[in-house]
Amino acid sequence: MLTLFLEAGKLKRLPRMGWLLRGIKNPESVADHTYRVALITLVLADMLKERGVEIDVEKALKISILHDLGEAKITDLPLEAQRYIDKKKAEKKAIMELLISLNSRSLEYFKLFEEYEEETSLEGRLVRFADKLEMLIQAYEYEKSGIQNLEEFWKALEYLKQSEFYDYFKELIDELELLKKEI
Amino acid sequence: MLTLFLEAGKLKRLPRMGWLLRGIKNPESVADHTYRVALITLVLADMLKERGVEIDVEKALKISILHDLGEAKITDLPLEAQRYIDKKKAEKKAIMELLISLNSRSLEYFKLFEEYEEETSLEGRLVRFADKLEMLIQAYEYEKSGIQNLEEFWKALEYLKQSEFYDYFKELIDELELLKKEI
Amino acid sequence: MLTLFLEAGKLKRLPRMGWLLRGIKNPESVADHTYRVALITLVLADMLKERGVEIDVEKALKISILHDLGEAKITDLPLEAQRYIDKKKAEKKAIMELLISLNSRSLEYFKLFEEYEEETSLEGRLVRFADKLEMLIQAYEYEKSGIQNLEEFWKALEYLKQSEFYDYFKELIDELELLKKEI
Amino acid sequence: MLTLFLEAGKLKRLPRMGWLLRGIKNPESVADHTYRVALITLVLADMLKERGVEIDVEKALKISILHDLGEAKITDLPLEAQRYIDKKKAEKKAIMELLISLNSRSLEYFKLFEEYEEETSLEGRLVRFADKLEMLIQAYEYEKSGIQNLEEFWKALEYLKQSEFYDYFKELIDELELLKKEI
Amino acid sequence: MLTLFLEAGKLKRLPRMGWLLRGIKNPESVADHTYRVALITLVLADMLKERGVEIDVEKALKISILHDLGEAKITDLPLEAQRYIDKKKAEKKAIMELLISLNSRSLEYFKLFEEYEEETSLEGRLVRFADKLEMLIQAYEYEKSGIQNLEEFWKALEYLKQSEFYDYFKELIDELELLKKEI
Amino acid sequence: MLTLFLEAGKLKRLPRMGWLLRGIKNPESVADHTYRVALITLVLADMLKERGVEIDVEKALKISILHDLGEAKITDLPLEAQRYIDKKKAEKKAIMELLISLNSRSLEYFKLFEEYEEETSLEGRLVRFADKLEMLIQAYEYEKSGIQNLEEFWKALEYLKQSEFYDYFKELIDELELLKKEI
Repeated sequence: MLTLFLEAGKLKRLPRMGWLLRGIKNPESVADHTYRVALITLVLADMLKERGVEIDVEKALKISILHDLGEAKITDLPLEAQRYIDKKKAEKKAIMELLISLNSRSLEYFKLFEEYEEETSLEGRLVRFADKLEMLIQAYEYEKSGIQNLEEFWKALEYLKQSEFYDYFKELIDELELLKKEI
Repeated sequence: MLTLFLEAGKLKRLPRMGWLLRGIKNPESVADHTYRVALITLVLADMLKERGVEIDVEKALKISILHDLGEAKITDLPLEAQRYIDKKKAEKKAIMELLISLNSRSLEYFKLFEEYEEETSLEGRLVRFADKLEMLIQAYEYEKSGIQNLEEFWKALEYLKQSEFYDYFKELIDELELLKKEI
Repeated sequence: MLTLFLEAGKLKRLPRMGWLLRGIKNPESVADHTYRVALITLVLADMLKERGVEIDVEKALKISILHDLGEAKITDLPLEAQRYIDKKKAEKKAIMELLISLNSRSLEYFKLFEEYEEETSLEGRLVRFADKLEMLIQAYEYEKSGIQNLEEFWKALEYLKQSEFYDYFKELIDELELLKKEI
Repeated sequence: MLTLFLEAGKLKRLPRMGWLLRGIKNPESVADHTYRVALITLVLADMLKERGVEIDVEKALKISILHDLGEAKITDLPLEAQRYIDKKKAEKKAIMELLISLNSRSLEYFKLFEEYEEETSLEGRLVRFADKLEMLIQAYEYEKSGIQNLEEFWKALEYLKQSEFYDYFKELIDELELLKKEI
Repeated sequence: MLTLFLEAGKLKRLPRMGWLLRGIKNPESVADHTYRVALITLVLADMLKERGVEIDVEKALKISILHDLGEAKITDLPLEAQRYIDKKKAEKKAIMELLISLNSRSLEYFKLFEEYEEETSLEGRLVRFADKLEMLIQAYEYEKSGIQNLEEFWKALEYLKQSEFYDYFKELIDELELLKKEI
Repeated sequence: MLTLFLEAGKLKRLPRMGWLLRGIKNPESVADHTYRVALITLVLADMLKERGVEIDVEKALKISILHDLGEAKITDLPLEAQRYIDKKKAEKKAIMELLISLNSRSLEYFKLFEEYEEETSLEGRLVRFADKLEMLIQAYEYEKSGIQNLEEFWKALEYLKQSEFYDYFKELIDELELLKKEI
């Protein structure tokens, strides 16, 4: 169990590569990102529930906390690297190995990760939505502080708009888009 | 809601002051720390449940994600500063203000924070336990990489040993203590 | 005495929080800031004297060197945090404790700090003027290097313009304002 | 051609992951490393030639400059990640794509890279030797400055000792080993 | 020989001062720069040869790898400092001392450095050309990421345009100039 | 005048080279150092006066604030570089130029700097003493946090012990030496 916590500590040291390669010195860590994904998931999941959607909030939170764990082994491969590397396959193998020390729990957690990776459950898809949203909020924050050259990240906005969750969080997405325009 | 997420983004930029003041350049962020507290909470809460303890895992996860949110307003005041500042009071006011944009949810989340702050629920106390444990794992990692002068952090070990959770996680704590001795 | 010097060393490690929270990675330290406040105080005080103002240059220099010392204990609380924390009170307590090892000198130095904090002497007010001016020069430098999102710092310009010292240093302030407009 | 130079610029921003994951904040970049590999190659190749070995110094220098270029696309995958990812295959594809803009030159440079990767020429093997030696010198420098936890890197010493070049550079390797012991 | 490699390691730690003084935190190292100068030299030298220019590629590569070595002793003195310091003289003395441990090789390498410094050979001048070009590509990359205040570096463009190599690499220079305009 | 303050801002960005070259990433800035030299000067000068030494405290403070200003032009040349560069001469020229915008004041300040550089006044020598002492306190702090390889800096202890001020501050020096031994 301690091994798992020590491996997770690597996420604190791993820079988010997309930012780094675009020239942002000392960008956020993978753990930084995961933290806000978890917070966003918490708020969005509770809101969905409030509006009558049948969602398992506990499950959504677990997925959000686990969703980038595999990067402790394979690092945060930037999108570009994924043309040369089968990230999905590598990440699955990595996360399986990381969880193995938990014995009985390992299979449950692995399945949660798969629901995220394959987008096969509502909760998995919500974390994917939160993951993209978090990245855009960070892009906005970087741009607001004067960093440029991040346009291509905003393609993810399209993903959010075509998501099943868009109707519920339209106001939130619109507000972010507006803020970006005002920079 | 976006305001809350933007405020939470400050936790990525805030260095954990205890490390910084002991001379660690570019230490982990508050968000880095919170991420691993959430992961530890997830694993420990599930284990407690497995062993028959009545614990609300969802609640524990929510508390872990929210427990340092107030620092977005008041920063990570080091222990020493708390001799001059009533941190508890300031943090409560800050977190109340941060949550207010969530309307109906704000009170629920504030109460969760209070359970942590005042250690009035099992879940609140578990997050406190995870919070101290996370700090010790980080202290161990820093020491392993050659950093010295962190002895006083290890006083927290006593807290863990006197906790109601110690019997459940004795093996984990012992293993950490052993690793530290082997540095 | 060595204790005081070691405590002052913390100012080298403390980032200026206002910049940090607006997304400037590795901003200047509190000590960096204090250094230039002292230099500005030196030049301005000598100029005032030259123009016939009765000012105690030695006293002004001492105040400038001591004016942020309390932050070694309470850290550089950003403006926003001061809505939740009585910074003035905390800082006074902190600086008193820091100086106590100097025995006979401690009271004198504490009084100098109070003249700054309460703006009760010409020298105290000059250091306040230098403190704000230094911040604006730094804001200008950050903006010139491409950092944005610092507009709110420029409110301090109003403070400078309404100061009793403005007439003496109008040319200096105007020059800075002009440079800013040219960015 | 400019594209290639811009891609190579990423090597300046990519941290060497092995150091990063062991807790070294802001470690050397891949470009930092490549620079010294090139210098070591220059000195060793000239020495070999002096001692009568038939070696193409120009070719060796070219290989040293090109040997990590593929990381601009796939990043510096740490050894551990290579259990989940076929780095060799990914790197070959990446370097091929990077060089393609050079037209007629691209094939020649790709072949040079392959000689390094597959250790099929004397020059390729010399750069591999220089690559490992450079890493050990860096490990020594980090350890000398107080960083610990780098023992596993020293396994590469065995590689150097079993190399065909060891007899020529025994004195150099011994000296490094001695310095390490004296830390 | 090991001494030389250890001294060269300082180039990894030395920030390029021109960027640093304009407010770029943690800019590239001297080694970062040298690496890309070597890569550019490799590509340009081979192209010149292809087009029938009599150029010694091996020699050009050696010069590129050695051209900033003296900075291990005298640091990267910014242009401004050179009004107070005779950099050329200091650098020659420094590089001589650095190379002395190589015995027979030291004179050869020193002469190569002089060809660069004094621009007395085609290869020396090509490395000078590559050195300036590398700086401009870096300036472009910094500007693209949002950094401002680098206009004065672009004076080097004039140097490139008046170079004997301009006719061969006009397309490359034009492309860079175009990219800059598009920022 | 603004020009002078902007130039002084470079001291915030300039790393102290001695630390940097020994492998300390992101070491203190020149301004960080100057700040504590000024504080130490303040305390020591007042103490000397208290004990009956005829010392001009204002003058001592001015010297301490100005003593490293020339580095804004020539950077912080490490000791080793001074074998190749006549730092004293370069620094005098640089500081003269920096002060020139102050007109009438420039000569006075230049003379103060010379008293430090040439150790021709009690106040100049006190700042030299404070300068060395500050460096040793910083070396102690770095070593306490786990950094090694700083032994050669401690030669400055001998300077302090042979100083005319040693008898006054023997206790302080002894305490520092004791702390170092206890690391």
